[in-house]
Formats: sequence, C-alpha cells, structure tokens
Amino acid sequence: MSRLDSFIRRVSAQRDCLNMVAGMIAGVPGPVLELGLGNGRTYDHLRELLPDRDIYVFDRRVAAHPDCIPDDDHMILGDIFETLPRARERTGGGVALVHSDIGTGDAESNARIAAFLGAHVPDLVAPGGIVVSDQDMAPAGWERLPLPEGVRPDRYFIYRRG
Amino acid sequence: MSRLDSFIRRVSAQRDCLNMVAGMIAGVPGPVLELGLGNGRTYDHLRELLPDRDIYVFDRRVAAHPDCIPDDDHMILGDIFETLPRARERTGGGVALVHSDIGTGDAESNARIAAFLGAHVPDLVAPGGIVVSDQDMAPAGWERLPLPEGVRPDRYFIYRRG
Repeated sequence: MSRLDSFIRRVSAQRDCLNMVAGMIAGVPGPVLELGLGNGRTYDHLRELLPDRDIYVFDRRVAAHPDCIPDDDHMILGDIFETLPRARERTGGGVALVHSDIGTGDAESNARIAAFLGAHVPDLVAPGGIVVSDQDMAPAGWERLPLPEGVRPDRYFIYRRG
Repeated sequence: MSRLDSFIRRVSAQRDCLNMVAGMIAGVPGPVLELGLGNGRTYDHLRELLPDRDIYVFDRRVAAHPDCIPDDDHMILGDIFETLPRARERTGGGVALVHSDIGTGDAESNARIAAFLGAHVPDLVAPGGIVVSDQDMAPAGWERLPLPEGVRPDRYFIYRRG
C-alpha cells in the first residue's frame, strides 16, 4: 500500500471515529479536549460536529489555517506534559470527549506519550465520556469500544468511561 | 463540510484519478512527470502504480519523507517556471503522464501557474499521453476525460492528447 493510500485510510479513520462518538456523548455534559491542533482540520471537524460544546485545544504552537484557530480562551499553548495535568483549571468539571492524535513516527516517543496520557487523561473525563486516540492509553477498567467499519484495529483506540 | 471532510475528498480524488489513468497509458511509452513533490505521498503512489516507468519530480526543494525522495537523476530542483521548459533535456522524448498538484490557496497565483502549465506541458506529452491536474490547463484540441465516480467536476482535470 502506498503512503497516499495509507494516509487516506488514516484520516478517513479519524473522521469516522469522531463521527461515531459524536452521537455517543449526546447525553454527557462537558467540553471537548483536542490534543494537537496541527493544521486545524480535525478541530474544524469537531466544531462542526459539536457546535454547542466548548472545545479546548492543546498544542505547542499554532501552525493551523487562520480559519481553524481557537480563540485565546480555548487554545492552550505549551508542552502537553505541562499543560495537560493543569487542564481542569480551564475546563472546570469533567470533559465529554478527548481526541488525541499526537503520535509521531518515533515508537519510543509514542510509548512515552501514551503512558503520560494514560496517567492523566482518564481523570479528566466525565462518567460516560469517551477518549478517541491514535495511541493506546489503556485506561484501567474502561470499556474499549469497537471501531467503525473499515478502520484497522490498531489504527485508533476508543474507550468509554463507565 | 469541514476542512477534514474536504481534505479527505481532495486526496481521495487525487488517488482515484491516478489509479484511473495508470491503466489508460499502458500502451503509451515514456516517463512520468510529477509536478510538486511535497511530502512525497503522491510520488510514492505513482511509483507503486507504475513501477517500470521513470518518474521525474519537480519541486523547489525536497521536504518529503526520506523514503519518498527520488534519486538525483529524477529529482529536478528549482523554480518550475525555469525547470519545466527545459524538461526535455532530462526526459528525452515525450512523456506518458503528467501529474500536477501545485495549486495554492491564492487564486491569482493559481491562474498564473495554470497559464504557464497550459503553455508548456502539452508539448512535453507523447501522443495518447495524459495530463492530470488540480488546475485547468485547458490544452487546445485535447480531449477532456470524465473523472472517476464521486470526484467533483472542478476538483481535478484530466486531458488526453489525441
């Protein structure tokens, strides 16, 4: 499979996962956390899917399309290892959805990020809330949800807090 | 439609167009020109689709994934306005396929590029050869081919030289 094919599968999987969980959090109050702004395409998708939610975006810097940049109250700049543990100061209560797509090409770095997220993300999520991640955070005791049709098993991980 | 949706449609359209024309040039000898290397995903797709063709890639600089960089004989660095008119020196005879995805977000710049490509690309193409472009080069007297199913009419332009 070419890198173009693989890339299309990856971004399509991301969209399909987000579309799926948007309906599943309908009864769960709270904002959304987007870990990684990047070019802002996924943030744009989230705000279109969930127009009534506050969406807080974490990234080291803003390099997104000008139309896809959150306002200052919702853009949390800095190293995620420092900003995420303090996310509650911004979000108030538990969050309904966390989407994380901050994996890199480096397996060691990914393992470190996954362990960090696994340690900090679960406590941020409200009961019934969902985590969608390109890394396996493996939150203890959470339900792992099946992926949308056509999404490769290890491409995304979706967990719901009981 | 979100930017994520729009982006998925754009890259899927690109892949579908390339897959379609790969079979159509089976009887046309000659190399392939890829205008714009970018991250190298499309180049990777082209070389997988057309493993027996020489593929010459034009770009201002190399910023692709290390696995997706052509060798020096096939990477033509520089301003396309200067390098393309001299492409024959590298390709020898006519080419079987030109793929161009060098549009920007700027309409004026795109119009200038489209006019330039329309003036220089047609002469490079062998009889029966094909041009796939995100810009309308409108080569005089060429046949405009129907796009693959699901591709929006103005998203891609495919022409075949008679």
